[in-house]
Amino acid sequence: MTRVAVVIPAGGAGQRMGGVYKPFMELCGEPILARCLRPFLRRADVHWVVVALPAELLGAVPAWLCADARVRTVAGGAQRHDSVRLALAAVPDEAGVVLVHDAARPLVTDDVVDRCISAAAAGQSAVAAVPVADTIQEVDDAGRIVATPDRSRLRAAQTPQAFPAAVLRAAHARAAAERVTATDDAGLVARYGGDVVVVTGASDNLKITTPTDLAHAEALLRLRGT
Amino acid sequence: MTRVAVVIPAGGAGQRMGGVYKPFMELCGEPILARCLRPFLRRADVHWVVVALPAELLGAVPAWLCADARVRTVAGGAQRHDSVRLALAAVPDEAGVVLVHDAARPLVTDDVVDRCISAAAAGQSAVAAVPVADTIQEVDDAGRIVATPDRSRLRAAQTPQAFPAAVLRAAHARAAAERVTATDDAGLVARYGGDVVVVTGASDNLKITTPTDLAHAEALLRLRGT
Repeated sequence: MTRVAVVIPAGGAGQRMGGVYKPFMELCGEPILARCLRPFLRRADVHWVVVALPAELLGAVPAWLCADARVRTVAGGAQRHDSVRLALAAVPDEAGVVLVHDAARPLVTDDVVDRCISAAAAGQSAVAAVPVADTIQEVDDAGRIVATPDRSRLRAAQTPQAFPAAVLRAAHARAAAERVTATDDAGLVARYGGDVVVVTGASDNLKITTPTDLAHAEALLRLRGT
Repeated sequence: MTRVAVVIPAGGAGQRMGGVYKPFMELCGEPILARCLRPFLRRADVHWVVVALPAELLGAVPAWLCADARVRTVAGGAQRHDSVRLALAAVPDEAGVVLVHDAARPLVTDDVVDRCISAAAAGQSAVAAVPVADTIQEVDDAGRIVATPDRSRLRAAQTPQAFPAAVLRAAHARAAAERVTATDDAGLVARYGGDVVVVTGASDNLKITTPTDLAHAEALLRLRGT
C-alpha cells in the first residue's frame, strides 16, 4: 500500500482572523485544525502529517495537535507556498503520495479525501474541485468586463490536492528556484506541464476566511448532525 | 430623477427545490421573494417591479407579492433569459434604467442596490460582483487542468445587474433573434460590445440553490440580527 504524507500549511499571516490564530479557533466545540486532520488520521495509509505553524507557536503546541504520533510540526514561511515547501522538506522519502490540505477547510469528508488519495496512489495528480456556482467574469484594470469564460469548463479548486511525492517535490523545487509564487499546488504542477485532474469535491468543503464563514460552517455542521 | 424598473426572473424550472417553488419558501419567517423585493420597494426611484412567475402560479399570486402597487406579474419562460425578456416586455418605455435581480438572492443590501442603480443612471451598465474566493481552474472534457486563469482578474457575478433600459432591450432582442442563451445579462450585454463594469457586491449576497444554501442564509440573517 502506498504510504501517504499529509502537509498542512498553517504558518502564514493569512491564518489570522481578528488577530486570533484561526486553526486553533473552535468550531462547534473542536479546534478547526483538529477537524481538518481527523479524516486523515482515520486512515491507515497516512503515515505522516506535517503541520507548518507560525514559528512563534512552535514552543507551545497544544496537546491535542500532537496526540497522534504521526503528527509533527515545523515552522512555516511567510506565504502559503513557503509553508508547503518547508513542510514538504520534513516529509520522509518513503512517502509515495503527498497530499496538501488547507488548515481552514475543516469540513472535508472521507469520500473526498479518498478520491484524491486513490488518484495519486495510481500516479495521477488530483485536486478536489466543484463546478463554479456563479457566472465568472474576466475584468481589466478598470473593472470592465472583457470576457465571460465558458462556465462549464471552470472548476473552483479546493483541497485536498494529492500528488505522487516526486511530482510535488519537483514542482516546488523549480518554483523556489524561479521565485514563482502560487496559491494552489495543482496549478503549480500543471504550470510545469504536470498532468492534474479534478476529482469531485464537495460544495460544503468551505474555506473559513471570515467570521461569516465560521457561522456558515457551524450551520453546515448542525445540518450534518456532527 | 431616472425612473427605474426592476425585473425579477422567477419563472423557470430552476426555481424549484425538492419540488417546492423556492421564491415562496420562507427564510426566517418571510418569503424569499419578499426579501428580494424589499430593498427595491424602499426606493422612491423604483417605479415598476416586474416579476416573471411560472404561468400556473399567475392565477394564485399571494397577497404579499402585490401589496405594493408598483409590482406586477407576468408569465415567465422556460429559461432564465426567456423570463428576463418576457418581463422586460412589460416594462414601460418611461423606464430609463432596468435592473435585473435573481429571485434567489434575498440577502441583497441597500448599498449594493444603490451602487448598481447609480452607475446605470449615469449611463454605465453595471454588475454587482465579488472577487473569487477559490483558485479557478480551466479543465478540458476529460477533467484535466489546461489553464489557471489569473485570479486577480476574475469576479463572481451576482445580481443586481443594472443597465440603461435601451442597452438591455437591444441585447435581449438580438439574443432572441440569434437564439443565443445567456445565464447572465451583464455577460450578454458585454458579448454584444456593451461596456459593463463590475461594482462591489457582497460576499453574503448568496444565491439560494440548495437546502444547504437555505441554512447558510438563515445563519447569515441571524448574524445580521434581522
